[in-house]
Amino acid sequence: MLDAEIIAVGSELLTPFRQDTNSLYLTEKLNALGIEVRFKTIVGDDASRLIAVLGAAIKRSKWIFISGGLGPTEDDLTREVVAQVLNKPLHEDAATRRRIEARFVRVGRSMSPNNLRQAQVPEGAEVLENKNGTAPGLWIEHEGAVIVLLPGPPRELEAIFAGQCLTRLELLVPKTIRRTRVLKVIGLPESEVDQRIAPLYTAAPEISTTILAAPSGIEIHLAASSADEAVVESSLAELSEKIEAELGDSIFSTGGETIEEVVGRYLVLRSKTLAVAESCTGGLLAERITQVPGSSNYFLGGAVCYSNDLKTLFAGVPAELIAEHGAVSKPVAQALAIGIRKRTGASIGIGITGVAGPAGGSENKPVGLVYISLADEHGVQVREFRFPGDRDRIRQLSSIAALEMVRRRLRD
Amino acid sequence: MLDAEIIAVGSELLTPFRQDTNSLYLTEKLNALGIEVRFKTIVGDDASRLIAVLGAAIKRSKWIFISGGLGPTEDDLTREVVAQVLNKPLHEDAATRRRIEARFVRVGRSMSPNNLRQAQVPEGAEVLENKNGTAPGLWIEHEGAVIVLLPGPPRELEAIFAGQCLTRLELLVPKTIRRTRVLKVIGLPESEVDQRIAPLYTAAPEISTTILAAPSGIEIHLAASSADEAVVESSLAELSEKIEAELGDSIFSTGGETIEEVVGRYLVLRSKTLAVAESCTGGLLAERITQVPGSSNYFLGGAVCYSNDLKTLFAGVPAELIAEHGAVSKPVAQALAIGIRKRTGASIGIGITGVAGPAGGSENKPVGLVYISLADEHGVQVREFRFPGDRDRIRQLSSIAALEMVRRRLRD
Repeated sequence: MLDAEIIAVGSELLTPFRQDTNSLYLTEKLNALGIEVRFKTIVGDDASRLIAVLGAAIKRSKWIFISGGLGPTEDDLTREVVAQVLNKPLHEDAATRRRIEARFVRVGRSMSPNNLRQAQVPEGAEVLENKNGTAPGLWIEHEGAVIVLLPGPPRELEAIFAGQCLTRLELLVPKTIRRTRVLKVIGLPESEVDQRIAPLYTAAPEISTTILAAPSGIEIHLAASSADEAVVESSLAELSEKIEAELGDSIFSTGGETIEEVVGRYLVLRSKTLAVAESCTGGLLAERITQVPGSSNYFLGGAVCYSNDLKTLFAGVPAELIAEHGAVSKPVAQALAIGIRKRTGASIGIGITGVAGPAGGSENKPVGLVYISLADEHGVQVREFRFPGDRDRIRQLSSIAALEMVRRRLRD
Repeated sequence: MLDAEIIAVGSELLTPFRQDTNSLYLTEKLNALGIEVRFKTIVGDDASRLIAVLGAAIKRSKWIFISGGLGPTEDDLTREVVAQVLNKPLHEDAATRRRIEARFVRVGRSMSPNNLRQAQVPEGAEVLENKNGTAPGLWIEHEGAVIVLLPGPPRELEAIFAGQCLTRLELLVPKTIRRTRVLKVIGLPESEVDQRIAPLYTAAPEISTTILAAPSGIEIHLAASSADEAVVESSLAELSEKIEAELGDSIFSTGGETIEEVVGRYLVLRSKTLAVAESCTGGLLAERITQVPGSSNYFLGGAVCYSNDLKTLFAGVPAELIAEHGAVSKPVAQALAIGIRKRTGASIGIGITGVAGPAGGSENKPVGLVYISLADEHGVQVREFRFPGDRDRIRQLSSIAALEMVRRRLRD
């Protein structure tokens, strides 16, 4: 791999409130070209510090991408510092000046003179036109290195990079085919996934394997590069099949789909509909299901039965049942699932009741105790869970467990 | 302010999938002590690159915080590199070795010998015990600089920093009182907020003012430092009051509360209850309301009426009304609000219907068209919105607008 580094400029990126995210986009695009990112540096709007960072970068990296600090204000120093460090005088680029002036005319605002700083270009630099803003990007080749200046707003940076940097980079780097594959796993801890698949991926060193703990489960990222597309595809397919054979139906997706999307696809495939009755998740399960465009084709809707009365009103849970067993109980979860299915006429009904905390727990029914039930034409099943973590985590884990119950039911 | 820099070590932090977040936590804590972060560097698990980064840091910063690379595997190099760069030989710390061994006994796992690398300590370093993991932190004073090594997992890093670094830092830095205040604004664009309050905050240069566009609205962060607590408090209060006077009731919170929390507080204060009937938001509004612990005291629940049948079943919306006006219409929004209030007996009922997209839009009813209605004992109001963005954004903006309608209703 070829070596790149990314420098993000902006004092706001050194506060607790903001984080550089452009580097994630740039890294993805550079990796796909076979260029690896070796360093990321975040530095404030300060000339001497930026000079130090840029000086170190030029000594060690062939590709340097700098985001931010190209705007019209006093704080924006990137252009001037780069010109100074590379010893390339700035001159005004007439075409860029015209574009900046035209942009102000178009939006009907008067232009303050400092905007013309954005038309200053270091000698020998190529201007990367910015269709979404006034500050253009700059492409500078210098003693074998390439230094690319990009504006900080992600929409502007991404459009300039995709439209004008990619083709330039493709001409300069050896052609590489890079393919990635994401396997998503549910219901297994990260350590177990790693332990079980390590013998497989260590035997395939040509593939870069990364195991990530995402909020919705474990993700296994596979990436391979080669000049030959067939080689890449077959080596990825081979490792992927071995991992699938090892982890079996704990893998719910091999094409990047979310669990909501997989469940939606199954529901469409089986011509089934779904309705939910939620207590402790408070609407989160319905919200996740309806994140999927087109979910109205199989999701009828649901009830957020936060109070006991609403459990009776919307899902027909008998008040005596709640009085006898408590709202957080197996029988109430079952009655929610059966009731919502009956009321709505859905093929599948889901009922969730539990203690999300922080208050409301007891010795017998601690925070994290959740019952989830699924009712369909074959009958009703119910599972008891003891989820760890805080209110938010318990609600998230509950909604995932419910989706997983639907997936397993529909897959069989 | 005193100058610090943060170095995050780990090859996974140079992929498109993972980002260093420890630095946000550290920055917040350091800022509160009057220490400013000047540089952040992210570097992979590579000795020569880490040596270069650490070498530059030692030359320019008084406080250096390094996270990651303290684990037991071959990849974990931070401890060795720091010892080498500072020229301090490593020796085994007996107490740390005992803690590591005891930890393995406690969890009933056998310890592989490489775990003992974590007991290696550079000469003169203080061990910062890690109660949540095996790798301890290290505190090293060297030629006037302080170098702190912390494990990468946030739970471990935060516990060690809060428990063992803060008190050490407080002894070393001049005492400074720093106070912050967050004003949250709803319904105004960032540029208008900035334009209206710029004259106020530029007249108060002793306060650091940051305007941030958060998903739920605009946030104005004020921060001030001084040796004198009364000075800090009064200058913050003065600017805060001026901003509140300028922006009026567009400010919904001055104490960091979310809009859900503000609405919840009003509902408790006025002894009111709430129920919702959602179509296009699919449960998101209920989910947000129930994020607040204790929301069961005022939130009865709601219906996710995704299909037309469920609008009739759960909120009593007449089928003819839907047939006449369409599901996305003012009358249906009103009927949802009135119906859910009546069915549940809540003081306030909210109805939402709209086109979240990407499909389902038409010339008359484009994607982004959303009607939100509020019914209470005074009657029913309904508002039409045209929200920009994708499905997710439209649903987010709809849920915020609904909460804002409840806030304004209860405030009056």
